[in-house]
Amino acid sequence: MEREYNTDQIPDKAALKRAFERVTGVVRHTPLLSSQTFDRMTGGRLLFKCENFQTGGAFKFRGAVNAVNSLSEADARKGVATHSSGNHAQAVALAARMRGIAATIVMPETAPQVKVNAVRGYGADIRFCEATLAAREAALEKVVAETGASFIHPSNDVRVIAGQSTVFQEMQHDLQHDAAGLDMVLTPVGGGGLLSGTALAAKLLAESERPGSVKVIGCEPAQADDAYRSFKSGELVFPDHPDTIADGLKTALGSNTFPIVRKFVDDIVLVQEEEILRAMKLIWERMKIVVEPSAAVPLAALLNGSLDVSGVRVGIILSGGNVDLDALPW
Amino acid sequence: MEREYNTDQIPDKAALKRAFERVTGVVRHTPLLSSQTFDRMTGGRLLFKCENFQTGGAFKFRGAVNAVNSLSEADARKGVATHSSGNHAQAVALAARMRGIAATIVMPETAPQVKVNAVRGYGADIRFCEATLAAREAALEKVVAETGASFIHPSNDVRVIAGQSTVFQEMQHDLQHDAAGLDMVLTPVGGGGLLSGTALAAKLLAESERPGSVKVIGCEPAQADDAYRSFKSGELVFPDHPDTIADGLKTALGSNTFPIVRKFVDDIVLVQEEEILRAMKLIWERMKIVVEPSAAVPLAALLNGSLDVSGVRVGIILSGGNVDLDALPW
Repeated sequence: MEREYNTDQIPDKAALKRAFERVTGVVRHTPLLSSQTFDRMTGGRLLFKCENFQTGGAFKFRGAVNAVNSLSEADARKGVATHSSGNHAQAVALAARMRGIAATIVMPETAPQVKVNAVRGYGADIRFCEATLAAREAALEKVVAETGASFIHPSNDVRVIAGQSTVFQEMQHDLQHDAAGLDMVLTPVGGGGLLSGTALAAKLLAESERPGSVKVIGCEPAQADDAYRSFKSGELVFPDHPDTIADGLKTALGSNTFPIVRKFVDDIVLVQEEEILRAMKLIWERMKIVVEPSAAVPLAALLNGSLDVSGVRVGIILSGGNVDLDALPW
Repeated sequence: MEREYNTDQIPDKAALKRAFERVTGVVRHTPLLSSQTFDRMTGGRLLFKCENFQTGGAFKFRGAVNAVNSLSEADARKGVATHSSGNHAQAVALAARMRGIAATIVMPETAPQVKVNAVRGYGADIRFCEATLAAREAALEKVVAETGASFIHPSNDVRVIAGQSTVFQEMQHDLQHDAAGLDMVLTPVGGGGLLSGTALAAKLLAESERPGSVKVIGCEPAQADDAYRSFKSGELVFPDHPDTIADGLKTALGSNTFPIVRKFVDDIVLVQEEEILRAMKLIWERMKIVVEPSAAVPLAALLNGSLDVSGVRVGIILSGGNVDLDALPW
């Protein structure tokens, strides 16, 4: 495990802006939706950024496109590689296909067949390994050694972080003629790619009249509270048997995301499992959109009283919408 | 049953335009979404009008707002009344509350408690009756006799028809700078309010460069095919034990909607129950939005091969998103 905190690698303003230019027109410009019901329930003015509508069903496509499309021609010819059984695997496979380069995805033997099929459908090469972190990293290193492929980490890669920053940049772009702007933005936190990118964009870019004035809050399941504990203690800790319905949020912060979160995020709050489930179902019922459990974690943090947003304009990033409709959690 | 076809009551261009002005800013301006998956599956360019995001979760709010807000002050003081156990009941109750007038809703004793609560939550007075058409009409007549309330029929009321026309008008407004425009528009058909309004707007209004050139197709469950049979035979027929998962589509065309459909609709096509179910689930999975079975009927008609839309730009009205998440049909 890489333990050096390469703070010098933190994407700067120019890198964030380049990422925005690179992904614009390639990724889907997702809508901002509002809900009178949730405004009434929270007392705030909530704007939901629908990354569940993103290509591949999650924000992950942004980071993958930025990473793949920022490779030099020489590097691109050697292809890309990653390990993931989730949304990042599909995102990298699709971004690579769009650039016309090879992608190798290391997946655990236990990965659901539907996810294997989706990745294979995008033309990626799949290498199966045992379902342990050690086996996954070994398999990935082997691919990289054999092919010279560029490794694109799901959350800690700085190109991925810059790519995820475009969710917030797009929100600011859409709100640029709205004098009120945003006071706060909430994201779920797992590996921290989305939270880091959002925090960098909110604190470094002067898109709004009041750069840096937007509070950035990470929202995490209490049953996978490693980012919360890392943030509060100042020491990077790892998940201890994370067990949450928000399966995209079981991963840990990394050598790049942790220092960014420490420096630029205002707070991390926790939610219980039943609060996630309730928020998820309410979003389906009231907003008529399909979101995955991870995406419901920020609203859960508003509904459980962790955050008081009375009179506050809050951006909420709905991170994805990939769920198995035949195995709903209620 | 009213059998006089009051064709002279067909809303004219001015009535359609007045309805658009009346509902704009009151109803939600719903987005048009596209789906690469469905474009690929059908060969067409599909634009989905998301009335599942409409206030109250269905297009019905448009007709209710137009009807309620077009009443004179004197009539408004006497309130409004309707019979419905579905989306129209909530829509009328809410539109009346927004104008600050009384609404009385006749509902069958068998109506689900959740719908009764929703209507009551909007402050409407509920009168329960036996679950027969005769009992419903008798109860409604009694309300009207007692109070002088204006009856707002769920589909056959000309003010409702003009209100439903605003779905298509809004689509045309959003596409006014898009030279390609629409070639065809599909709606589900039950009582025919949405189909009639859509057909009038498509054929009478010159919003596009090519007024009248948009084909209008009604889509109906084969197990509730009364509109299809009426359209094909030229004689208004009534549903014969309709039994469909698309429970909003069990009702019949009426004295106003039938002649409009006959005159302005290009065709009506049928779909099977399993096709509705498949289309509904695909919309949830691929578009990440929640739609009710009725809303999936038009896509079902494209996927079952009833309509060839290869190279065609098709507007699809997703009529609503009110489903019981605890009793999904798969």
